[in-house]
Amino acid sequence: MDRKKSVNPDLIKEREKCTFNTLELTHLLDGSATKTEERHSREKFFLEDPELQSNVPLEYLSHKEKYEDAVRKACIIFRKVQELQNQGKGGMDNFREILGGQLGSAILKDGNPLTLHYVMFIPTLMGQGTFDQQAEWIQRAWNCDIIGTYAQTELGHGTFIRGLETTATYDPATEEFVLHSPTLTSYKWWPGGLGHSANYAVVVAQLYTKGTCHGIHPFIVQLRDEETHEPLPGIKIGEIGCKLGMNSTNNGYLGFDNVRIPRINMLMKNSQVLPDGTYVKSPSSKLTYGTMIFVRVVIVQDAAHYLRKAVTIATRYSAVRHQSQIKPDAPEPQIIDFVTQQYKLFPHIATYFAFQYSASWLWDIYNNVTNELESGQLESLPELHAIACCLKAVSSADAAQGVEICRLACGGHGYMTSSNLPSTYGLVTAMCTYEGENTVLLLQTSRFLIKSWQNRNKLDKLATVAYLGRKMSKSNPFEKSVEWIIHALQQTAASKIELANNRINARVRNGKSYEDAWNETSIELVAAAEAHCRCFIVTTFYNTVNGLNVSKELKTVLVQLLNLYGVYTALRLTGDLFRFTNITGQDVETLQDWLEELLALIRPNAVGIVDSFDIRDEVLGSTLGAYDGNVYERLYEEASKSPLNSEPVNKSFKSYLKPFMKSNL
Amino acid sequence: MDRKKSVNPDLIKEREKCTFNTLELTHLLDGSATKTEERHSREKFFLEDPELQSNVPLEYLSHKEKYEDAVRKACIIFRKVQELQNQGKGGMDNFREILGGQLGSAILKDGNPLTLHYVMFIPTLMGQGTFDQQAEWIQRAWNCDIIGTYAQTELGHGTFIRGLETTATYDPATEEFVLHSPTLTSYKWWPGGLGHSANYAVVVAQLYTKGTCHGIHPFIVQLRDEETHEPLPGIKIGEIGCKLGMNSTNNGYLGFDNVRIPRINMLMKNSQVLPDGTYVKSPSSKLTYGTMIFVRVVIVQDAAHYLRKAVTIATRYSAVRHQSQIKPDAPEPQIIDFVTQQYKLFPHIATYFAFQYSASWLWDIYNNVTNELESGQLESLPELHAIACCLKAVSSADAAQGVEICRLACGGHGYMTSSNLPSTYGLVTAMCTYEGENTVLLLQTSRFLIKSWQNRNKLDKLATVAYLGRKMSKSNPFEKSVEWIIHALQQTAASKIELANNRINARVRNGKSYEDAWNETSIELVAAAEAHCRCFIVTTFYNTVNGLNVSKELKTVLVQLLNLYGVYTALRLTGDLFRFTNITGQDVETLQDWLEELLALIRPNAVGIVDSFDIRDEVLGSTLGAYDGNVYERLYEEASKSPLNSEPVNKSFKSYLKPFMKSNL
Repeated sequence: MDRKKSVNPDLIKEREKCTFNTLELTHLLDGSATKTEERHSREKFFLEDPELQSNVPLEYLSHKEKYEDAVRKACIIFRKVQELQNQGKGGMDNFREILGGQLGSAILKDGNPLTLHYVMFIPTLMGQGTFDQQAEWIQRAWNCDIIGTYAQTELGHGTFIRGLETTATYDPATEEFVLHSPTLTSYKWWPGGLGHSANYAVVVAQLYTKGTCHGIHPFIVQLRDEETHEPLPGIKIGEIGCKLGMNSTNNGYLGFDNVRIPRINMLMKNSQVLPDGTYVKSPSSKLTYGTMIFVRVVIVQDAAHYLRKAVTIATRYSAVRHQSQIKPDAPEPQIIDFVTQQYKLFPHIATYFAFQYSASWLWDIYNNVTNELESGQLESLPELHAIACCLKAVSSADAAQGVEICRLACGGHGYMTSSNLPSTYGLVTAMCTYEGENTVLLLQTSRFLIKSWQNRNKLDKLATVAYLGRKMSKSNPFEKSVEWIIHALQQTAASKIELANNRINARVRNGKSYEDAWNETSIELVAAAEAHCRCFIVTTFYNTVNGLNVSKELKTVLVQLLNLYGVYTALRLTGDLFRFTNITGQDVETLQDWLEELLALIRPNAVGIVDSFDIRDEVLGSTLGAYDGNVYERLYEEASKSPLNSEPVNKSFKSYLKPFMKSNL
Repeated sequence: MDRKKSVNPDLIKEREKCTFNTLELTHLLDGSATKTEERHSREKFFLEDPELQSNVPLEYLSHKEKYEDAVRKACIIFRKVQELQNQGKGGMDNFREILGGQLGSAILKDGNPLTLHYVMFIPTLMGQGTFDQQAEWIQRAWNCDIIGTYAQTELGHGTFIRGLETTATYDPATEEFVLHSPTLTSYKWWPGGLGHSANYAVVVAQLYTKGTCHGIHPFIVQLRDEETHEPLPGIKIGEIGCKLGMNSTNNGYLGFDNVRIPRINMLMKNSQVLPDGTYVKSPSSKLTYGTMIFVRVVIVQDAAHYLRKAVTIATRYSAVRHQSQIKPDAPEPQIIDFVTQQYKLFPHIATYFAFQYSASWLWDIYNNVTNELESGQLESLPELHAIACCLKAVSSADAAQGVEICRLACGGHGYMTSSNLPSTYGLVTAMCTYEGENTVLLLQTSRFLIKSWQNRNKLDKLATVAYLGRKMSKSNPFEKSVEWIIHALQQTAASKIELANNRINARVRNGKSYEDAWNETSIELVAAAEAHCRCFIVTTFYNTVNGLNVSKELKTVLVQLLNLYGVYTALRLTGDLFRFTNITGQDVETLQDWLEELLALIRPNAVGIVDSFDIRDEVLGSTLGAYDGNVYERLYEEASKSPLNSEPVNKSFKSYLKPFMKSNL
């Protein structure tokens, strides 16, 4: 059988059933036909490079071999990125996609050890360096004469960055900072590429000058000799070891034993230390918010992308896999015909769209606010921060759970590394923790919500919380519509915020400090922020779909997905709906019916929809999800690549097993 | 600092706060003080054997090296098991614990390639072989002259075993069966140890004789030459490749090209094929249910054990880790003082107890029913099957989710392999799929529930569904008590079963076949089975705690945990409670208050409770969870074992990085 040429007949049938033009949806999701073409050519440029192929799948290699192969590929990728730059096809957006996004994870499945150079090191130099510093460093970094990383998190300190312990003490006598790690917990821990790859880093440390601590500031520190790559004196450095995923990102640790750097290595665009040690404060502490928010915008987008990858794999597999019986004596059906299977897959197809549209909204707003910031307007920042925090938390958590549901929906084969679902999970679940732990972020959102609630009569300008200012009523009659669901979610979110606020106040009245009352109410505060976020996501999905100018056929499908996402969300929150709206048990049955109707409506287009995500086989990287659906052939072929299978008898038979078995004769 | 001697001061303080005798709880959980001692001596015997230590943590090795090291250790473990047997300390229970349970996974973290020999191969010979067959095979297997596995699942066929494709066709001319794999999808796929370890297997195949197929039957098949270990002619064999976890279990594939085995290699205790090819049917098809149910009993127990391991790690870490602020200018608190963190941990401590008590109940009932079976009574089997199915599904799914919540509660460090949380997840999530996929199992339970509902007036003998026969009423007044919660859960489960039954009937009235109506209602059927199961778990927890004869101090703690599990369960199901009981919004607030009260009550004993699980550091295998709480020292020490850290400059610098960086000069 020539696998390359024949497509699984089940998939052919599925594709024939499709009621809309998948290409139209592809172009819609990319932005335009031109953008689809650009993406195709970028994918071709990277994925068809013979130097970037591997004979033995990475998972069979030792940890060290994985790293070495990753450095080899990372250098090739960087060279290709430079080629693109020279052709004028550069730009940070593309870089991120190539280095960390879907395309990047297709080439280096377990992470790129050099990514932070472009994604954190250079942007930090650009954002926080003075003009002089930029002139000195950016050209060298851009040419990759030096490779940098960003060292902030410490062994004992993560999300709460004010607690960092590394010190940078200014010595006016030599005009140097002395970097020092006073404790084991102050060792830098986690930065990608720090272990053995980078030779420079931006190091975040507590600045001391004239005996006073001025909080955390960024410093450029050389870590390794540029010629020999040996760690410089006073630098204790290495990698932190194996992880659930991202095992070739070379996450490292870093300790300082009184390492001296010149004064001008402090990034001084905002705050400064003058030669005599005088500290000059930054005009606004909010200016550094920008990067943090940017990374969270990116995470929402990535969460959407990982989820659509998983759901593509699981949907195609479910169309190909036959198992069990619906009717006795009938042949085993495609498992996608089991309603329980549809329930595992289709809501996650819909969730991808929901997250995608929230990500796009967030990206646009981020750009607006960034422009405002540059002209000195800061008032939109708290709202943007609040919505970015909860969207990052909810999208990463839901996407992680969705990827796992997709994996489990593929049964045993989903557990195979070659399905690519385990490593997709490894990447997506990491997002729940990095760049702000999810619970901490939700509590930041709820702080904004409580404040907004207290000022709910003055919320005109704030789009995301405007509903708090509207008169609430439980009496809105139930309707089988997304409009009703949105209203119900607003009612829920507003009521939860109000209740949490009341609970805090009640605790304060009972003698607790506001801080303790806040902590004791924090489960409810997290729930309120989540409700607010889910309400926002459904609303944004609704507004986006209603604003689209597409064919009737595609519109029908998108409305089905919107409805599915709405009803799926509502049914997960019936406890809240009973509490805060006038829904009845009968209405819940109506919603359940509607859910089942929608699953049946989406069923014939399921493969068509995931096809229109247009994810190249190399990006999917999955034996179960490839376009041609030749699942079993691919599983067998992948197994044959295991080095254990290259010889019929492994040496452990002779060394251990045979002596043991024969010892009992 | 001498790590071995000093215990983290936070943990010392936590242990001083404990209000009950942890040893009393340890003995209670083990069964008695004597059983605790026996466990200690078994652990010592295995875990302190110098031959079973590794210098380099396994995760750094290549896939092949991992396998080779696993075979080495598996042979040592088997030899020690034989020693125990010779001392009269054998018994299948201990074997399972050593080969597959907590102790087993402490020695071979990523699985034992020989486990199925004791856990499946020998028991199948014993259960399904005739007296003659047992005489011929069991001695050789028991002595490990041969090593066997159990080959049932195929590339295209899992949970639905009637769909297996491998054929065993009887040839009366030679009195042989011809084993054949007619398609790629008929290849055996997944059996542990099949790849390169076992030389025999019990193979499950469709039996054909005299032109008729008689369904699946078990056959003993030699796979490899006993001297050379070379695969025998017609045997295509190898390993299936890397997986999310269990990478040293050597899961294999197996294809047959007309392989002949003697007639007497069919296991004929139940059905037989006579020399002329006449098929003699088994007297009862229910006799083979036993093993299936046994394995599910074991899974419920394992789910409980994995969860308590994860929650021990996360609770100790949360007592040691300081982060963020509750009050401004106060030092960073232990993260266990954040109520959101308590909410992540304590319900899972309670869930461990809930699952443990359900597992014990199930184990007792299993033994009763097995005795009944042997005396020919079959009537309890369907109920046992139904409750085992849903308990397996709910406990594995909840434990997997609980382990992940514990991992995420440890922040970035939970993502480290050295936390042992990722690989614990890998083991526990696998249980959602193997031995019956969870959704399929829940639907089997709901089939029993629907039948029970239809016969609800004759349920006196069936303890687990007796509540279906009682008169239901929505008017039971709300109380802050577990009794009320149990009543509410019964009400919920019964109502869901009734509603699902009505939905099926309505669909049938609308012209659907019963099978299609069943499928269309399956989301609700799964929900009904889940509700039934959760109701059972809370009830069993309640009955057990009420029946315990323990000190007042311990009883107080166990009742708190019971209450917490009850209220946690109720609050996750408020939508159902509103629908099916007369709960109000005010009552939900009361439950939420109760939850928060219970978290505060459990807080001072949290470390004490997990201490009393008495899990040896080697079994925890975690940098974050060790008894002494020296988290950061252990993380650093583990990182230093990475082979990448054994040299300051990795060779990839010279090969790839330097040429790339210098090329731009």
